[in-house]
Amino acid sequence: MLLLHLDREKQIPLFKQVFNQLKEMIDSDTLKPGDKLPSTRSLAYKLGVNRTTVFKAYEELWACGYTESSSGSYTTVRKRAKLATPKRIMGKEIIDWDKISTLNCRMLTDSIEVHKPRKVGKNLIDFVSLSPDPGLMPVRDFKSCMNQILKLRGVDLLGYGDPKGYEPLREFITDQMRRHSISVASDEILITNGTQNAIELILKLLVKEGTKIVTEVPTYSLAIPLFHYYKAEIIEIPMTEAGMDLDVLEDAIRKERSALIYTMPNFHNPTGITTNQVHRERLLSICEKYRIPLIEDGFVEEMKYFGKAVLPIKSMDQYGVVFYLGTFSKILFPGLRLGWIAAHKTCIRKLIAITHALNISGNILSQAALYRFCESGSYDLHIKRIHRIYRKRMQTALKSIKDYFPQGFVSYTKPVGGYTIWIQIKKKNLSGDELIKYIDSYGVAVSPGKIHFPKRPDIPCFRISIAHQDEDQIEEGIKRIGRALHDLL
Amino acid sequence: MLLLHLDREKQIPLFKQVFNQLKEMIDSDTLKPGDKLPSTRSLAYKLGVNRTTVFKAYEELWACGYTESSSGSYTTVRKRAKLATPKRIMGKEIIDWDKISTLNCRMLTDSIEVHKPRKVGKNLIDFVSLSPDPGLMPVRDFKSCMNQILKLRGVDLLGYGDPKGYEPLREFITDQMRRHSISVASDEILITNGTQNAIELILKLLVKEGTKIVTEVPTYSLAIPLFHYYKAEIIEIPMTEAGMDLDVLEDAIRKERSALIYTMPNFHNPTGITTNQVHRERLLSICEKYRIPLIEDGFVEEMKYFGKAVLPIKSMDQYGVVFYLGTFSKILFPGLRLGWIAAHKTCIRKLIAITHALNISGNILSQAALYRFCESGSYDLHIKRIHRIYRKRMQTALKSIKDYFPQGFVSYTKPVGGYTIWIQIKKKNLSGDELIKYIDSYGVAVSPGKIHFPKRPDIPCFRISIAHQDEDQIEEGIKRIGRALHDLL
Repeated sequence: MLLLHLDREKQIPLFKQVFNQLKEMIDSDTLKPGDKLPSTRSLAYKLGVNRTTVFKAYEELWACGYTESSSGSYTTVRKRAKLATPKRIMGKEIIDWDKISTLNCRMLTDSIEVHKPRKVGKNLIDFVSLSPDPGLMPVRDFKSCMNQILKLRGVDLLGYGDPKGYEPLREFITDQMRRHSISVASDEILITNGTQNAIELILKLLVKEGTKIVTEVPTYSLAIPLFHYYKAEIIEIPMTEAGMDLDVLEDAIRKERSALIYTMPNFHNPTGITTNQVHRERLLSICEKYRIPLIEDGFVEEMKYFGKAVLPIKSMDQYGVVFYLGTFSKILFPGLRLGWIAAHKTCIRKLIAITHALNISGNILSQAALYRFCESGSYDLHIKRIHRIYRKRMQTALKSIKDYFPQGFVSYTKPVGGYTIWIQIKKKNLSGDELIKYIDSYGVAVSPGKIHFPKRPDIPCFRISIAHQDEDQIEEGIKRIGRALHDLL
Repeated sequence: MLLLHLDREKQIPLFKQVFNQLKEMIDSDTLKPGDKLPSTRSLAYKLGVNRTTVFKAYEELWACGYTESSSGSYTTVRKRAKLATPKRIMGKEIIDWDKISTLNCRMLTDSIEVHKPRKVGKNLIDFVSLSPDPGLMPVRDFKSCMNQILKLRGVDLLGYGDPKGYEPLREFITDQMRRHSISVASDEILITNGTQNAIELILKLLVKEGTKIVTEVPTYSLAIPLFHYYKAEIIEIPMTEAGMDLDVLEDAIRKERSALIYTMPNFHNPTGITTNQVHRERLLSICEKYRIPLIEDGFVEEMKYFGKAVLPIKSMDQYGVVFYLGTFSKILFPGLRLGWIAAHKTCIRKLIAITHALNISGNILSQAALYRFCESGSYDLHIKRIHRIYRKRMQTALKSIKDYFPQGFVSYTKPVGGYTIWIQIKKKNLSGDELIKYIDSYGVAVSPGKIHFPKRPDIPCFRISIAHQDEDQIEEGIKRIGRALHDLL
């Protein structure tokens, strides 16, 4: 006697519902090998559905190897499907995958292990996540843009696209960059699968084993495994309160030629530091003097919500030595994986060839839907809206730190935009790992400082991200950290 | 006197329309630097719009650097915006990008240059494209799936996703593979950005400079630049009428150890050849004996429309030596860039780490929309429909070749599925390049044979793809090639 429940309100066709439920019974051993299924006629009658519905479900079960039937006889549950899995589990491994993996891959998997997302419990305050607050995502507007674009141009957008990206979006980006005083033509823009993909493309273009890459430390934690993967030698330049220490940089470059400099001049990840005009000019002139390409990661360029904006380094770049990286992930929809590179025409041409060979093209449909969203004016409105919100959140965060953190033991940055604040505990012999665990036990997850350093030193610093929490949660979270620090110090 | 036309029916907001049209006038020099724009009041009056609309457009023009204004005076077109481009063009290149590009990149850009898409004129018949016929794409169904999923789960799907891919889609793929007698668990599946990305991930895992990769020749043309990029040594095994020559393969492997074998057992690209059960078993047993991983590229697995299906090699793979590659691009929407790898659990775990480091995650929204499409039963219906259509197209193609090609001079394959037919001209000293050009002059674009060989020999063969043309076009195209061949031979 089979107990099946069909839900006619559901979007799932009835035959699929019958199929799914029978499949589950077989998988869970409620129906055993050799068991007979009722005839299509009787089951159809019992369920009050058309006989074809049951017939289709049976056909599907048979096609998936769950049943067997010979003409004229009943359909019965098949043995084979149940045997398949144990057979494979018992089969011994004849290839030692760890041994034959490339060294690059081993370095990468080793260095990325640490990044497993923390499980955020109900009462845990999440200061780790750097993706924009889901509650602020303009999903409904985007849905209507997706709809319009599928209606208007669906067939074109679902075929292979241009590896350069969707042309109108590239033009929109060109206009957008102009607002930040960067003047590029659309053939100097390549749309990428987010910033991560953008960095990898540039590494593919310029980095071979032993190539020296200069980076600020601390730096973007997921850039490090990429540098490792490409077997680059990482030259670490310490961050000062005003940005990468340029004296140290110039010394380092004079000593050994580097191939690439990686920097985040705005709301640096993790420190939140923004460099000033003078610093930017000097950094650019160093790159020009020594002819070293510069990656300017503008991942939160749009998030200047306090005071006057400093212009991107790319805006002063007359010779095209700067690879400017932009992304929609930190203000709109990270799930679409959309970013871009603005660079010298020659480089863009090479990067297009690489991206074509690796991906054929990007997801043109998402690019077109996002373009429509931006073009409609929703982009600007959204930016204005989140500025207002994050300005308040950052104010709350900074005020709470001042109010609740123990004085004298803690130093922290005061970002003028973006999402992250960097906290350093001034106490000798304090382990970073223990510090993070301690804070965790007070119900707050923060990002450990060490993952932002290639050598992963166990130092007592951490990053707070305000991207995901509202003002009350921010205040509560910082209060809890404050309590933890008071108890610890 | 400005001539602006506002279209109130359009989805584009009025201020954007004003902005766009003024921007165009400035870009095209209709409005010159120093020219005054009308006051917001007078322009608003003339256009019959609210003054704020014009004000917003002006603000936008200013933000993009197109205009300047000082309080109390008129807004004028700015000089700087016009100067920016020439300044950059005049700036000399201080970095020699060609010289500093990696060797990998140069090898890749050199080997991919050839693939520039041919411009298909109105009267040209396109036998090149291997993407499914846009006319057959179930766009409307997909649109409604996209809509449902954005409504139900938009917020979740637009955030960062699981690097493994959207769980329900992975389960659907598991079921789907079961239909082809492949029994894998969902943790043995990784969703990729199409087959191209899948191959690259595996190369990243297993290939370093000088690694030997065995491939059939001819083979998938876009696999070759990837092998070059990873500086693999390509071991070429000739195709016979029954598939890769396994005697030659075993000899080659015995002589020098290879790290990887790449094969397409079904409707091989470009030849269209399908190997039989015995061939598959022997190939697998060679891989098991010598412990060499095998990439089974099942890019058109679903397109068996003649006769009985032969089971995938992966279905017999007890030890997990086979990387099975699947894709939705050849039956549904190539633009979504969705494929998958089914492989040993250990490998999938490593590949997930790599994909996470490179892309963070895939486009989860597209994966979810596609899942909904598949789950609703539309996938099966679509497959049935295109089988009917392509069966007829392939019959037409093969019959036309028999009818119109000069006898004795031409040999061709007779595929039992998929999209491609391989044509060889039996005439000495005939250049492939000239052959293709000659056929082109009769109004038919075919894919040159040489791009399917790593060494690019100038041999007189070519590939016909029936993916993009209907029966009439197929007959007409083959008739034209027949005429060309008659005239040439």
